[in-house]
Amino acid sequence: MEQELIFTNDVGAAVDGLVDRRRPASTVIITDTNCRRLVLPLLQAGSRTVAGAARVITMDSGEEAKNLATLEKVWRALAEAEVTRKSLVINIGGGVVSDLGGFAAATFKRGVPCINVPTTLLSAVDASVGGKTAINFNGVKNQLGTFTDPVASVISTVYLGTLPQQEMLSGYAEMLKHALLDSAAAFASLLKYAPADHRTYDAAGLLPLLEKSVGVKRRIVREDPHEKGLRKVLNLGHTAGHAIEAFAMKHGGTPVPHGYAVARGLVIELVLSHIRLGFPADTLRQLAAFIYENYGASDISCKDYGELIGYMRADKKNAGPDRINFTLLRAIGDARIDCVATADEIGAALDIYRDLMHLI
Amino acid sequence: MEQELIFTNDVGAAVDGLVDRRRPASTVIITDTNCRRLVLPLLQAGSRTVAGAARVITMDSGEEAKNLATLEKVWRALAEAEVTRKSLVINIGGGVVSDLGGFAAATFKRGVPCINVPTTLLSAVDASVGGKTAINFNGVKNQLGTFTDPVASVISTVYLGTLPQQEMLSGYAEMLKHALLDSAAAFASLLKYAPADHRTYDAAGLLPLLEKSVGVKRRIVREDPHEKGLRKVLNLGHTAGHAIEAFAMKHGGTPVPHGYAVARGLVIELVLSHIRLGFPADTLRQLAAFIYENYGASDISCKDYGELIGYMRADKKNAGPDRINFTLLRAIGDARIDCVATADEIGAALDIYRDLMHLI
Repeated sequence: MEQELIFTNDVGAAVDGLVDRRRPASTVIITDTNCRRLVLPLLQAGSRTVAGAARVITMDSGEEAKNLATLEKVWRALAEAEVTRKSLVINIGGGVVSDLGGFAAATFKRGVPCINVPTTLLSAVDASVGGKTAINFNGVKNQLGTFTDPVASVISTVYLGTLPQQEMLSGYAEMLKHALLDSAAAFASLLKYAPADHRTYDAAGLLPLLEKSVGVKRRIVREDPHEKGLRKVLNLGHTAGHAIEAFAMKHGGTPVPHGYAVARGLVIELVLSHIRLGFPADTLRQLAAFIYENYGASDISCKDYGELIGYMRADKKNAGPDRINFTLLRAIGDARIDCVATADEIGAALDIYRDLMHLI
Repeated sequence: MEQELIFTNDVGAAVDGLVDRRRPASTVIITDTNCRRLVLPLLQAGSRTVAGAARVITMDSGEEAKNLATLEKVWRALAEAEVTRKSLVINIGGGVVSDLGGFAAATFKRGVPCINVPTTLLSAVDASVGGKTAINFNGVKNQLGTFTDPVASVISTVYLGTLPQQEMLSGYAEMLKHALLDSAAAFASLLKYAPADHRTYDAAGLLPLLEKSVGVKRRIVREDPHEKGLRKVLNLGHTAGHAIEAFAMKHGGTPVPHGYAVARGLVIELVLSHIRLGFPADTLRQLAAFIYENYGASDISCKDYGELIGYMRADKKNAGPDRINFTLLRAIGDARIDCVATADEIGAALDIYRDLMHLI
């Protein structure tokens, strides 16, 4: 059964409506320390069912908490709260909460239903994702988990002001990716909105853009729920993006947030798309200008190309010793998976990227 | 996709056939210390794919090992063996191995396919069970787990000689239960076979009986995969059986093995079926004679009735303060779930049980 997606900024009423319809034997909330402080009071004020939950299970915030020790604590708390398969778990938070809380619920008594209330733009954009749950294990991200859909997600834009601007921009990069996979109109409306300061952003204006973006991902995931092929189009921007992330991590200094790396990766991979598949130069320039203005550039020089290409090679299976796989675009909405590029072509793309991002 | 069930005593060839058809990227075996010593050498000799597995992961044997610490070790071993979603896990062992190994595989990288090679009669009978995987947690049996079918089970009777006779009789009690839920012919053929000494038993003769028994369970589970109703018929014998188990545990002495308690519970519940639903007396006497001869009786007196009834009340939800729920039979193959019996009726049934089992 596919999950229900509710797009609304009246989150409390939507949660109450879901709980009223499902009539669970009990309700428990899984959240993290940040959301408990900043979001939960708002939601408790607006929702009788959140205010009346049998228990609030609070995990530490941040990716480091997405581990087996935290999962064990959450399992134990579910047991103490006497949760059964007729209960309902409500995950309130970003991706770490829905990943770990979703995994805990999916495996407690062989599956307790849950609903997700994403509080970050990135987790809201990801909310339709063929229900991946996960924890990190043994040094590997998302090593353990299940494919389990929440029964519903309540997707809003009202809590984004509780987070730094950087969080909003990270989610917006994924929205840009979806728009590039979708249509020129979707792309144009994102460039027009622009994620202004998180203290003054237009929450109501962002909600329909978010709904459209989730719709793109949902369509792709629905056609390929277990990542057999088509879903690879969602890697757009990520092969180069991961290389930028890894490069920054290796060389110390401020780490590049994932969404920022993806934003820059999108520019690099659209340059490659231009070189390999004739992606239109004017659209490429529009994207590059938008990314430069909102995300800035990663400072790389031609001496770094070898290392960056090395990361790209490690990130994906190569088709050969000097050939690296990408998802590229012929045009907006026309993606090709498993496109092979040589190190020379990537080097040429990085030259153009540096030019577009005013690094030369 | 429903799992494939292969009934054969040429286990090695069946496993090789499955692996050849699936062409996994790698194969790992999960087993326990007992099976590694007693069964694995036989299977390695008869199967090129078992002999060539990338890794054998050996957990401790016994119910106490079915915990989070063991699961973590197995997950780590899967990581070390570089298992991917294109690998294949082969669980070789009894229910503890398939429960824990199945859970580990179902959650590693969000799901690695596995096949089960049950080595006990009980786990062979259970092999078609709507794919339950589990570990015990926080003092509760099967508290954590998933509903995940193995892609196939290779079901045989050749390894039963590696185990004590008691293990075989435990599984046979479940087969008797299935026959009672199925048909007079199935019941008659089980009484006729009789599980002779485990060193001299007729493995070839047992295999078709096992296939028929698994078929009964499979039919029931298929109609009610998530235990909403019908599947409760599988509780036949278990309400009284659990009471006998709990009574023995409370009063020390030798613990009653689960299958033995179920065997005696079947007699008690068929007496109740006779009292409440007119189950035929001659069939009841046949069963009682068979159970007495093969399993013996639990020594209970009329002073113990109150305590036994108390356990039955705790085991199932009561319909009222003095009413206890059972699955009962009107005749072989005609089960009724949610049958209510009073303490007086249960007392009368225990009187007749003691008479049938030569305890009076």
